[in-house]
Amino acid sequence: ARPKVGYLYSKRGGNSIIYDYIKEVKVAEIKTKPAVVTEDTTVYDAIVQLFLEDAGTIFVTNNGHLTGAVSRKDFLKIALGNTDIHKVPVGIIMTRMPNIVTVTDNDTAYEAAKKIIEHEVDSLPVIEKTVTEDGKDILKITGKVSKTNITKLFVKLGSGN
Amino acid sequence: ARPKVGYLYSKRGGNSIIYDYIKEVKVAEIKTKPAVVTEDTTVYDAIVQLFLEDAGTIFVTNNGHLTGAVSRKDFLKIALGNTDIHKVPVGIIMTRMPNIVTVTDNDTAYEAAKKIIEHEVDSLPVIEKTVTEDGKDILKITGKVSKTNITKLFVKLGSGN
Repeated sequence: ARPKVGYLYSKRGGNSIIYDYIKEVKVAEIKTKPAVVTEDTTVYDAIVQLFLEDAGTIFVTNNGHLTGAVSRKDFLKIALGNTDIHKVPVGIIMTRMPNIVTVTDNDTAYEAAKKIIEHEVDSLPVIEKTVTEDGKDILKITGKVSKTNITKLFVKLGSGN
Repeated sequence: ARPKVGYLYSKRGGNSIIYDYIKEVKVAEIKTKPAVVTEDTTVYDAIVQLFLEDAGTIFVTNNGHLTGAVSRKDFLKIALGNTDIHKVPVGIIMTRMPNIVTVTDNDTAYEAAKKIIEHEVDSLPVIEKTVTEDGKDILKITGKVSKTNITKLFVKLGSGN
């Protein structure tokens, strides 16, 4: 046990414990309920939903499968443009799969945070992937991990809970 | 040194090290450049600035003093309403001091994260307060701490840097 004692006195060692600990926390433990609408929802109604759920990103499904996402920033751009937000469906303006970065329950919170920073997004959908008989991927959204979830986890770690 | 060894073997102890460590990091170490406009900037130009700097919140000053803030969410609400965003100055629609939560360089990243979560905001201005001869508070903005900065710090801690 001798070398382990070093953890207590060297900065590097203290760090090791922190990052081992941080890497234990799984996406499943910190994910929360995502705001979801269907592709045929108008942009306006999708924005209303965004406000109602106080979400930063809205996820879009078709027949129960995740097909897209729209952020507050995307909506703000659209709202300033010439799009008739009362007529155009959200499916037209969304970022479409496979251009959405995702995580699964078993990924770590650390991996999720890294993806959020690297891909410069506010929120990741947590997905369950199944493959149909004819070899198609089906993505079900089971939650989301956002910068808010990571910030909450940081506060929780700092509180010693 | 005996009791300290326990840190290594009990969950509680491991936690202690983590939160001691987390609480060492100061706002000054993680703050970044804020997006700032003056009160007389039109809402439209403020939004353009928000996009140019890819910021989540824009801070507003008057004669160099912090007087307000507007988030992406606020702008989206305004953009959907009847406000003429090309004419109305941002000073009219902003959240005005003292209704803005702030931090200083010497606060910890942990305290900043806690304020972000408790007050449900995306970003906090980092301020330097001086008092004028006639007893007025003057706030200078020297940076911002957002959920992005906290998420980056989380990734940094998890990477062992």
